[in-house]
This record gives sequence, structure tokens and C-alpha cells, in this order.
Amino acid sequence: MRILREDSSLETFFSPKSVAIIGASEKLRFGYFVTKSILSRTDLRAYPVHISADKVMGVKAYKSVKDIPEVVDLAIFLVPSEAAPTAMLECAEKGIKHVIVLSAGFAEVDEVGKQRQEEIVRIARENGIRVIGPNCVGVTNVSNRFTTAEIDIDSLKEGGVAFIAQSGIFGTVIIDWAAANDFGLSKIVTLGNKCDVDEVDLLNYLEKDDKTRVICLYLEGIKRGRGREFIETFKRVSRNKPILVLKSGRTQAGARAVRSHTGSLAGDDRIFDAVLKQTGALRVDSVEELLDFAKVLATQPLPKNEGIAIITNSGSLAAMTCDELEKLHMKLASFEPQTTEKMKKIAPYWTSIKNPVDIGPAMLQVGSQILEAVLEDKNVGCLLIISSPPGILVKKNGMGLDLVPFYKFYRRIIDKHREKTIIFSSFGDYDTVQAAKEVFEKSGIPVISSVQIAARAIAALYQYKEYLEKSK
Amino acid sequence: MRILREDSSLETFFSPKSVAIIGASEKLRFGYFVTKSILSRTDLRAYPVHISADKVMGVKAYKSVKDIPEVVDLAIFLVPSEAAPTAMLECAEKGIKHVIVLSAGFAEVDEVGKQRQEEIVRIARENGIRVIGPNCVGVTNVSNRFTTAEIDIDSLKEGGVAFIAQSGIFGTVIIDWAAANDFGLSKIVTLGNKCDVDEVDLLNYLEKDDKTRVICLYLEGIKRGRGREFIETFKRVSRNKPILVLKSGRTQAGARAVRSHTGSLAGDDRIFDAVLKQTGALRVDSVEELLDFAKVLATQPLPKNEGIAIITNSGSLAAMTCDELEKLHMKLASFEPQTTEKMKKIAPYWTSIKNPVDIGPAMLQVGSQILEAVLEDKNVGCLLIISSPPGILVKKNGMGLDLVPFYKFYRRIIDKHREKTIIFSSFGDYDTVQAAKEVFEKSGIPVISSVQIAARAIAALYQYKEYLEKSK
Repeated sequence: MRILREDSSLETFFSPKSVAIIGASEKLRFGYFVTKSILSRTDLRAYPVHISADKVMGVKAYKSVKDIPEVVDLAIFLVPSEAAPTAMLECAEKGIKHVIVLSAGFAEVDEVGKQRQEEIVRIARENGIRVIGPNCVGVTNVSNRFTTAEIDIDSLKEGGVAFIAQSGIFGTVIIDWAAANDFGLSKIVTLGNKCDVDEVDLLNYLEKDDKTRVICLYLEGIKRGRGREFIETFKRVSRNKPILVLKSGRTQAGARAVRSHTGSLAGDDRIFDAVLKQTGALRVDSVEELLDFAKVLATQPLPKNEGIAIITNSGSLAAMTCDELEKLHMKLASFEPQTTEKMKKIAPYWTSIKNPVDIGPAMLQVGSQILEAVLEDKNVGCLLIISSPPGILVKKNGMGLDLVPFYKFYRRIIDKHREKTIIFSSFGDYDTVQAAKEVFEKSGIPVISSVQIAARAIAALYQYKEYLEKSK
Repeated sequence: MRILREDSSLETFFSPKSVAIIGASEKLRFGYFVTKSILSRTDLRAYPVHISADKVMGVKAYKSVKDIPEVVDLAIFLVPSEAAPTAMLECAEKGIKHVIVLSAGFAEVDEVGKQRQEEIVRIARENGIRVIGPNCVGVTNVSNRFTTAEIDIDSLKEGGVAFIAQSGIFGTVIIDWAAANDFGLSKIVTLGNKCDVDEVDLLNYLEKDDKTRVICLYLEGIKRGRGREFIETFKRVSRNKPILVLKSGRTQAGARAVRSHTGSLAGDDRIFDAVLKQTGALRVDSVEELLDFAKVLATQPLPKNEGIAIITNSGSLAAMTCDELEKLHMKLASFEPQTTEKMKKIAPYWTSIKNPVDIGPAMLQVGSQILEAVLEDKNVGCLLIISSPPGILVKKNGMGLDLVPFYKFYRRIIDKHREKTIIFSSFGDYDTVQAAKEVFEKSGIPVISSVQIAARAIAALYQYKEYLEKSK
């Protein structure tokens, strides 16, 4: 059932110049916000298609896609599944080459739906049409703000992380989370039933997309017969960009759940895991890991050497980090003698200037100088700064300090050493964490709440580095 | 070096009626906010002690604790370590029985500091004085708002979770986090160098504290010679209240870190782990787990049977949850036939009414009825609701829905079944997550962001239940 891949680029899905919305409606129901957002764009020509209305949201409507005065780049299906085969036929007659089927009611539901899906795939294949969906929320391109998802696109920040999911709801939730957390995304795609376009196609596309630095993938199963291409593509793309994979259906209960969810066959997880390792893709265990790892990989260079340094104001958080790092076979750097000498001159006698460097409440006074000493150490390839200052420092009824200028001092030092891998971790008082995000995340230094996830992100960087070195 | 335990209750530390602050100062430095907060209280008599000043913050000051016109319940030391032995001697002469040494510069620093610490312990022991610290931020009692920590006590919400840490900074960070996240605490203690009062003492105290339902412990090591009492106390207290333990120094790197941090000997982690399991205490792997598990244990009854149900709008998040549950040997409930019948009548045909029940976008329309059907099922002992609705539902430039009334419908159903274990999980859009917190957390149903942590919290409930049944 593979479609002829005449159009090897999927770019048109993300940057169409003309769009037909088949089943556009003014009713506040599924598809309303997609219609509204696309019809209001000034950078593309949008044509609502509606069986009876003359206008949709004030824009001239057409009875059929065939009546539209041009061959549009992209057709979006909002029509019920029973109307989809006819709509696809009309697209084919018109010569349209890209279709996103947002509607549900296909193979995920019953035998009738399955037949309808097979019908649209047959028509698409015979006419060289590429199809995303059905049963999805399609694509979102953060740089040109084009989206077929029901989201507030203007709240999204542009960044280097692409996200591919199967389920529309999950994709939407991730987008909403990103908007709420100022997390930079490049492109988001939900694939739904994957009747045509699948992860392999998207990896091929995103590999060349210069807005994307990291590719995140949520998977429930691999399409039957795509195993070999999956592996080859992962291997090749991994050499250019890191791929993070969150896969469910790892256990019997999980496999049953994905079968009811998207009809996917989860497969044997041990085999999947072993195969994935060979491809250089990095597997994560939770949404939280996925997002934090992506943030690190999208912004940080890979460590130049194996030495990891920690600077902290909290010995407890540093101790937990050391535990996690050692569990993952990571190594703490041994400082050069001159680094220790420099720190001795700066740090109060009651601090600990071994690695982890624990300067406690002296963090604000001498933090930037300590930072400088450690970053100048050639044994240090990666630095984790764990800064969780007490809230009383910044509270109005406390000392009322503004942490931002302090953190800007740190950043000035850090900016001289951007060739090193640098991660910030902050937890606790709301305002102190916000100050860290304000100063560091905005200049491309990831701020991670959990020290364990920060440690695991570091291990992921080293794992990826090893893959790249091996596959040279 | 054990002190005579004449006063078996530590209550005075948390609810003193009269307090001397030795080394009180108006200078904006360590101890300033403690002094300010205690001197401003109207429910206790506070006496600043200062070598020269007549007044501190407008309150009459005394040259020595001996000049105070009463024997205060508690003395707080802010003086440098070299002045601590004399201050302790004066407390002993005065007949004071409770001292918190906030100052640092003792055994954690060097040999001289260690000798000073031994000196104050000797004096305390000879005079039946109980000592918390040194090198800590002492106690916080959320119900009467008494605190010796530098925090904004008024921002803290009262709740059933007690927290014991060694390090002052870490304790402060947890308090700050709790304040920012509306997390209810009962009592917080940081023990510092544990020259006298240690975890065993506090567990004995908190066991009987009726404000405390769950005890959280961050540990770096066990005091030498306290192993047996530690085990016995844990075993006994666990039978009444769940104890959660986060321990660092699990690896060689972690052990080195805790040695520099608090001078603790971490010990062999496998032995610690095996011993802890026997005591019924539950071990957690991160701060995030600690806080989320505590929230669940403090609010939810233990499950009556092994059947776990999941209701969700996101099949992806449910699949990940199933994976985590099975990994932990947890079981999904088989619904009674009438439950399935009831759901068939309510849920649209395209939803999945197996367990996990995935009703997708129908969550808002039929969620409360599905909830009712599942909660009435006698095979269900524990219910996890995973609700991550798209942000567009609530956005002003979207559908502008208010989720709160919808969630209140859910809560009305839930309230009829509070004998069951119920956990809510929500992730994604900021406002939708806030609506869940607003409705559920305020009425004692925990809202957890990570589905994996939610699954692990459920496993912890079953583990604790098993301990209680075995130890009957």
C-alpha cells in the first residue's frame, strides 16, 4: 500500500501558498478554529469548500474543490469519513498533491471506517497525492505560524525542537505545554492513522529542515513492513540531528492500551530497544525527560571531554545528582591544581571546593568567580550549575534582592565558554526559578527543575556523542 | 555521647511560649529574619540577647540569657561557634531545656569546630538540655506559624506532610517550593550536624503529632550507633503513619559528596535499601517523587482492592501509565459487566471503554457519568483520572470555556466515593492544569503532573498497604 513518492519533499504541508478547507463551517465545532485561523491569514490564499453556503466567515465558499479558481497546494479535510473518498477523488481530478485529513472515523473505529481509509489511500496513490492522517491534528510550523491544529499559535515560541506524535490530543497537549513554558518548537506533526505519511517520511524531511535541531518522537508502534526503512532512516538522520524517542506499549498492559488507542502493534520492547540503540536514537522514559532532554540537545554543544563539574548552593541536591551520574557511568572531572588554587582564594573557608563545588550561601557573592575558575579548567567538558537560593532573598518582605543582575554576571562568564556544555538547574521558590529562566533560557542555557533529569540529560549527551564518534 | 532523654517530648521546640534569641541583631545578615519574625509575635514572650545593645528592633535586649526575667522555653543561638559553649553554659545555669543552634562553624568545618560542638553537647547532656543543630535552620510549625527558618511563613499552607532534612538550604528550598505550589505542610525540621536531636527522635515525636499524616525524610547518613533504634523506630512508626525516605550517597560519587556536605557516612546502599524495606518505609528516587507521593499518602485512603482503573482523554498518556503500572506489578481492574453496559450507553461509539477508558474529546460531555460508572464498580479500588484537555477550550480567543464547573461535576461524583483511592493527573495548558488544582487539590484530591510518578505513587500505596497487612 505504499504511495508513489514523486514529491519527495513534505515542505508544502508546512508552507502552502494556497489552501482549500473541505468541510469548512462557521459552527463552533471540530474544525472551527482551524478554519478561522487559516481564513484570517494574509500570506496565503484560502478557499472554504462547503456544500451549500455562499460564504464561510465572510470568505467566498465553493461547492467543490473543483470549482476553486486554482490548483491549491494543500487541501484540508474536515468532512465526515463517509464524505472523504469523494473529496479525495475531487482533489485528484483537480490535481492537488497534498492532503491533510483531520477527520476521525476511519480505521481507528471499525471495519467500515477501515474501508473508507483504504479507499482514500488507493485514490491518493493512483494520483501521487501525499496524505497526512486521518484522525490527527496535522501540522504546525512555528516559524510561519501555519497550523492545522486547534491551538493558540501566537502563544508559541520558535525554537529548535521538532515534535512528531501519533495522537492529536497528545500533540495538542505538548503544544499547549510548550506555550505555557516558553519552550521553543520548530515543527509539530501528528500523524494519526498514518495512512501515508509516517515517521520515516518526516525524519527524512526534518533532517534537512534548518529550523530543526532536535527531533522528538512519540511512538506507539512501527508500521508493518517499515522496519528496515525505519532503522536505516534513524541511523542516517541520527548522524545529523539527535532523535529522542518516547515509546509506549512496552509492557503487555501498555501494548493493549496502544492497540485500543491507535490500533498500533507495539511489538517486543526488548527488540525495539536493542534496535533503537544501534540507530543512535536516544530513548526516554517520560514526557518530562523528552522535553528536558530536547531543550538541552537543542541548545548545547556536545561535551568536548568526559569531565563533568557541578557548582551548587545545595549540597543535598548535588549529592543526589552525583548518585544519578554515577548510576549512568558518568564521571566527575578532576580539577586542575590551578583551579583549586583559584577557588581557595575566592571561596570562604567553610565551603567545599572539591567537585561538586558546594559554596552554599556564598553562591551569590562568589558564584561568578567560581564559575569562571571551573569553566577555565580544561578537564571540564560539561558544567551543571545547581542554584536554588532561598526565596527570602528575593521576597519583598525579605531582602528584596533582584536575582537577575546576579545571574547576568554568571551569564557573562558563561558566554565566554559556550564551547562547553552548560546546564542550569533550579528548584524551589517561584521567583528565584523565574529569574533563572529569564536570564538563562532566553540566552540558550537550559534550566531544568529536576536534578535527576538534568543528570540523565547529561548522560544522553555523552551517549549521543559516542554514537557520532563510532559512526564516523 | 547520648544525652539523657528526660524530656521525651520535643513539643517545646515547636510551640514555645518564651524564647531567647542569643546573638540577635538588627544587621541584615544571617539571623535577621528569624529575629524579626520572632520578636514580632504576640503569642510568645521573646527576649533578644546582645552583648552591648539596649534594644534590638525596638525590644529590650539583655546582656546574657541569665538576665532574662524568666526561664525561657527555648533558646536560639545565632552567635558564632566560638561563643556557643559559653552561651550553652549560661543556658544551663539558667535552667533552659531546649536549644536550637542555627549557627554554622562546628564539626562540619574543622577540628576546632568539632571540639566546640563536643563542648556544647557535653554541657547539654550534663544539664538535660535537648539541642537541635548546629548548622541548620531549625524548626517550622505551620499550624502556629512559629519558625526559626528564614522563610515567608505566611505564604505556607497547612497540611498533613512533615518534612525532615539535614541541610538547612535544602529544607528552605522545600519550604519555598511548597509555598509556591500550595503544598500543605505540618512541620519542617532541619537537623544540621545532629549533635543531639536526630531522625529517630523526630519520628517518635511526629508519630504522635496529630497534624502530621505522612513523614518525609531526606537522609545523607545514619548516625553511628543508632542503627538498631533507627530500624525499630521506623518499623513502629510505619505502622501508624507512612514514612517516605529520600537518601543520597547511594553511589561512591554520591557518598563522597555527602561526606563533604554534612560529614555523613552514607553506608552501603544495598544494605540500607534492604533494611528500609523491612521497616515499611517507602523509598523514593527524587524530590519530585517525594513530594507527589507525600501528597497522595496525606490525602488518600489506601486502596481496598488491587483493581486500578484509568479514565482519560489522552490514550497516549494512558498507555504510558499502563506501562509504568505493569513494570511495578500493578493490576488494571476488570470491570463488572454492568459497568461496561452503563458506559456503552453513555460514551460515543468511537471511544474506548475498556480499562483504560479513553473517551478523548468526549471527556467534558460524558466524563462525570463515566466517572460514576467506574467508581461504582466494586472491582475498582483505585482510580487515576488523566485529564489533559486542549488549551483552546479555555482560551479567551478559543472557546472560552470555564473548566471549573465541569470539574466540580466530577468532584461531586468523586465525593460519593471517597473510600476509594483517587488521583488526578493533568499536564499541558497552564489554565487547564490550574483549573484541576483549583477544584481537586483544594478538596483533597492530589493533582500530579507526571503520569509515571502518578503510577509510582499508586504502587507506593499498595506497597504500604501490604506492609500494614503483614505487620498486623
